[in-house]
Amino acid sequence: MRTVTVGAAQLGPIQKADGRQVVVARMLALLEEAAAKGCDLVVFPELALTTFFPRWHFEDRADADEWFEREMPNAATQPLFDAARKHGIAISFGFAELTPDGHHFNTSILTDKSGAIVGKYRKIHLPGHVEFDPERTHQHLEKRYFEPGDLGFPVFATEGGIFGMCICNDRRWPETWRVMGLQGVEMVMLGFNTPSVNSQKGEEGIEERMFHHKLSLQAGAYQNATWVVAVAKAGTEDGHHLMGGTAIVDPEGHIVAEAKSEDDELIVHPCDLDATRFGKTTIFNFAAHRRIEHCLITSQTEARPPVK
Amino acid sequence: MRTVTVGAAQLGPIQKADGRQVVVARMLALLEEAAAKGCDLVVFPELALTTFFPRWHFEDRADADEWFEREMPNAATQPLFDAARKHGIAISFGFAELTPDGHHFNTSILTDKSGAIVGKYRKIHLPGHVEFDPERTHQHLEKRYFEPGDLGFPVFATEGGIFGMCICNDRRWPETWRVMGLQGVEMVMLGFNTPSVNSQKGEEGIEERMFHHKLSLQAGAYQNATWVVAVAKAGTEDGHHLMGGTAIVDPEGHIVAEAKSEDDELIVHPCDLDATRFGKTTIFNFAAHRRIEHCLITSQTEARPPVK
Repeated sequence: MRTVTVGAAQLGPIQKADGRQVVVARMLALLEEAAAKGCDLVVFPELALTTFFPRWHFEDRADADEWFEREMPNAATQPLFDAARKHGIAISFGFAELTPDGHHFNTSILTDKSGAIVGKYRKIHLPGHVEFDPERTHQHLEKRYFEPGDLGFPVFATEGGIFGMCICNDRRWPETWRVMGLQGVEMVMLGFNTPSVNSQKGEEGIEERMFHHKLSLQAGAYQNATWVVAVAKAGTEDGHHLMGGTAIVDPEGHIVAEAKSEDDELIVHPCDLDATRFGKTTIFNFAAHRRIEHCLITSQTEARPPVK
Repeated sequence: MRTVTVGAAQLGPIQKADGRQVVVARMLALLEEAAAKGCDLVVFPELALTTFFPRWHFEDRADADEWFEREMPNAATQPLFDAARKHGIAISFGFAELTPDGHHFNTSILTDKSGAIVGKYRKIHLPGHVEFDPERTHQHLEKRYFEPGDLGFPVFATEGGIFGMCICNDRRWPETWRVMGLQGVEMVMLGFNTPSVNSQKGEEGIEERMFHHKLSLQAGAYQNATWVVAVAKAGTEDGHHLMGGTAIVDPEGHIVAEAKSEDDELIVHPCDLDATRFGKTTIFNFAAHRRIEHCLITSQTEARPPVK
């Protein structure tokens, strides 16, 4: 048994007017609760420090820079790192990153139990669009404000296990999971902000969107024999509703813990990393069974119909 | 609307002593039923003509050749092709193929409505093992009797749609679905013989195995916006139980029809191939959203732990 007790720390809505200090205070309260419950690791959502700003169109792209962090830790977030160290809890959270040389990424980081950053991921599968789209019921401008991540899907050997990260829309892409699976990942941490309305198919409905969310997590977990910790920002931000769906999934693909609310809520589960062994050494023993000579997966981006 | 009315023609058990004529007669009865129900296409399982022989260990590998077909059609199967032409129904079924130059494959074919073979697939993800394994509760010797397929995952433009095939264990591998998705597949036909007992984990149980089966189908369908027609050979063959689970899955990942028995059983569903359009042009618009520069998927077969 290599048990990591994980807290999936869902955040309720963050309004546009809320400052980072307000949010960090909420995150600190969840960390206190996690410490009391014996957590080794606490995972917060994508863009945990701000509202989901890609729903807002800024004519001048630079006007969006107020939502980005220029360094991490910074004055607003230092208390999170201090609390991690004080409690001996590793933490992971997402934020908008503006690099010194002017690049914009949708980023998440992982610390060890001393509060030192040991891992960083920058979101690769950015959904949405670049320009204001009058056809949509609401905007989803991630492709406007972020560049695709440039770090691949790295994994990190820390705290006795192998950990990876992905963000929101990444979860719908089996490539995400497989690339980490090929590095032996044992736990994937995944933050998300998912509108409960499909901006291109209003009648889809929240139940269908929750179904697709869970299906993606469960398949990724099973097909790579890994734990998954999926953490939502949920509830209504300035009139725009984000679905919840915070969940912990075991390496056989079963949901073992789920949030009940759309508010700040901590769910905790003891995850035995050795439970990944059976899948990784039998049906998903990649060395024995993968046949990469037949994959088109990296030789073409787009769908191409058959020639004849 | 481009509706293809599909019949998923589950077969009950085939005993080791049953000749091909007996099985073909059962398949013809299902084709008659399909014709009466207006089917355009009927899909039969993997290794539809024989018992699931890879459970039997033949010390001399050549002794297994009796289970293989040296040509297709042949005398035993010609009536299937005649019935396809007579009823104007495209058919697909699996069989063990022995080529003129001595290669062995786990194969499936697709005909058009005139009964002409228009597509062939040879199973790529062979599960199991090569030598007799005394540790297992039963043998699963696919790697002994078959070579990995050498045709990739081709798709076929026929009968107004784009059709692909995969076989049994292929369904658990997201690469299978993605390679066909990259060719614009609109319907994947999938035959399987799945023992209800995991030969390496007896306590797993049939419910868990059915969960993994359905999870794989549903994720493959959703993540590539394709119909899936999954057809079992089911029931007890010479004391060895195969689970059922014949199902038709829509391009959003929902099971829309399921078999109720472990016997010969036809389930029918009208599948609108245009229902694949929404997914293929929005969230799974591959050209807009895939980032192949970050995939390790074809550069390494095996899982490798992180360097540090």
